[in-house]
Amino acid sequence: MPLSPMPQPFSTQRRVEFRDTDTAGIAHFTAFFYYMEAAEHECLRSLGLSVLMQDADGHLTWPRVAAACQYFSPARFEDLLSIEVSVLRLGTKSVTWNFLFHAGPRRIAQGTLTSVCCRLEEHGPRSIEIPDWFRQRLQPLLLPPCDAAQNQA
Amino acid sequence: MPLSPMPQPFSTQRRVEFRDTDTAGIAHFTAFFYYMEAAEHECLRSLGLSVLMQDADGHLTWPRVAAACQYFSPARFEDLLSIEVSVLRLGTKSVTWNFLFHAGPRRIAQGTLTSVCCRLEEHGPRSIEIPDWFRQRLQPLLLPPCDAAQNQA
Amino acid sequence: MPLSPMPQPFSTQRRVEFRDTDTAGIAHFTAFFYYMEAAEHECLRSLGLSVLMQDADGHLTWPRVAAACQYFSPARFEDLLSIEVSVLRLGTKSVTWNFLFHAGPRRIAQGTLTSVCCRLEEHGPRSIEIPDWFRQRLQPLLLPPCDAAQNQA
Amino acid sequence: MPLSPMPQPFSTQRRVEFRDTDTAGIAHFTAFFYYMEAAEHECLRSLGLSVLMQDADGHLTWPRVAAACQYFSPARFEDLLSIEVSVLRLGTKSVTWNFLFHAGPRRIAQGTLTSVCCRLEEHGPRSIEIPDWFRQRLQPLLLPPCDAAQNQA
Repeated sequence: MPLSPMPQPFSTQRRVEFRDTDTAGIAHFTAFFYYMEAAEHECLRSLGLSVLMQDADGHLTWPRVAAACQYFSPARFEDLLSIEVSVLRLGTKSVTWNFLFHAGPRRIAQGTLTSVCCRLEEHGPRSIEIPDWFRQRLQPLLLPPCDAAQNQA
Repeated sequence: MPLSPMPQPFSTQRRVEFRDTDTAGIAHFTAFFYYMEAAEHECLRSLGLSVLMQDADGHLTWPRVAAACQYFSPARFEDLLSIEVSVLRLGTKSVTWNFLFHAGPRRIAQGTLTSVCCRLEEHGPRSIEIPDWFRQRLQPLLLPPCDAAQNQA
Repeated sequence: MPLSPMPQPFSTQRRVEFRDTDTAGIAHFTAFFYYMEAAEHECLRSLGLSVLMQDADGHLTWPRVAAACQYFSPARFEDLLSIEVSVLRLGTKSVTWNFLFHAGPRRIAQGTLTSVCCRLEEHGPRSIEIPDWFRQRLQPLLLPPCDAAQNQA
Repeated sequence: MPLSPMPQPFSTQRRVEFRDTDTAGIAHFTAFFYYMEAAEHECLRSLGLSVLMQDADGHLTWPRVAAACQYFSPARFEDLLSIEVSVLRLGTKSVTWNFLFHAGPRRIAQGTLTSVCCRLEEHGPRSIEIPDWFRQRLQPLLLPPCDAAQNQA
């Protein structure tokens, strides 16, 4: 049986901006959802993809169906966060992205975003199977089941 | 010579939310631009209008061409701001809105937003004269020239 | 056996603002986290409480440890959302708030925020048991176990 | 008479994120204020400075007293903006920053932020003269008077 290849998470960085902080002196919990989305889009760009794409059959779009984040340690103004992006689950029609945030060695947060692949039609988006050409580029980001379980624990 | 009628500014209130604040413990300067836009839209609704409207000739839209704000005193989490909305200038194609922010008797900020009336066309928005039915409803909000001058001083 | 009293959720409303929307023409998924926090704080105010309080022993603060949201149907500019706020879990040291969003009869989203009760000390926040005077005011918002289970399903 | 040295503006880039856009399909006018602040802070870091600093006399802070922006052309999701940061006016106690935004050759926006140098004291910030060690590092960013006039025209 062939071994599955090691997953290759995408890595990026993000500096905590002043407007991301709040009266408590730390990055507001909502900032991490912005960071996740921007990291997801940057990851897609690195693969030659985008959340707003077109193929022969029309326009693709990826509405969110779920978002979640756990917070382990506060981040502060001008902290440089490293963000590791991987895919926790690659379903027939949906993708669950996974994000790990660190500030140096300190673990800051872990979050997920789930989107459904849709075709933009006259009356709004209709869910479809993820096209193969899109799925194949996400495949290398997919975490092996045990890592995914650990990550969720 | 007939006297012009007294202008009738629109008034509303807004509470400073936690996410509007920053590490300095005050409402971030950008929050006032959100407050202005929301107050403008609330004012339009009170007049039976909206920034996104349709008439017999198609869709209207109002892109911003300028925004400005002066800050006099900080606002803090849970402060209840009163906002007075008026029209500083009602041009042929553009409107300059004026906003005064107070927290009780304390003057907090004063700002302006300028938008151009546009018809949405295939290749994007094209500036047009403000339709009469729209202009007439804004007229009562127009500040007399001397108040406008004072406000800008 | 005494029946537990019916829980009394707190209700409020929120209009989708222009800046909450995105290029897809709907309220951005992050907007619901802002709405949740603002509704939580409004609920606390209605009970005579705040997220930033002081008692004889010092300052209380409530850092977030988790946030999550599921999206059922899109909300659009100027939609008026009704928000029902209740408590899903009232632990020794933490509270999990629950939020249901509707636009008229249409279910829009459901989310949770979990915060830990902390005492602000010199070296940062230290988790403590929720003081009785705080807990008692939250008690009427607590969902019965079966509703809580359903809500999570 | 010695010639003044050529000013050396600071340059950076910023990609328009999805959450920065609105229902009209363009970057919301408020996004540029965030971009300006982040570019200002990045410029300060490049000079070894920060908006939150400490010297022998205590803490420095820079509250905003004014913010303004003019919009020339819309920016869209994933557009890469170049931002040129300079100093329009270096007063005794205040600095007015100037920001020019382009997307390729297309001029997008021009804005200013004015901040007052303050010492953080027990009862809040008190305005002071900008310390020499701070002023000297901003000096090379100062636009010559004629450019400044043109910029404002």
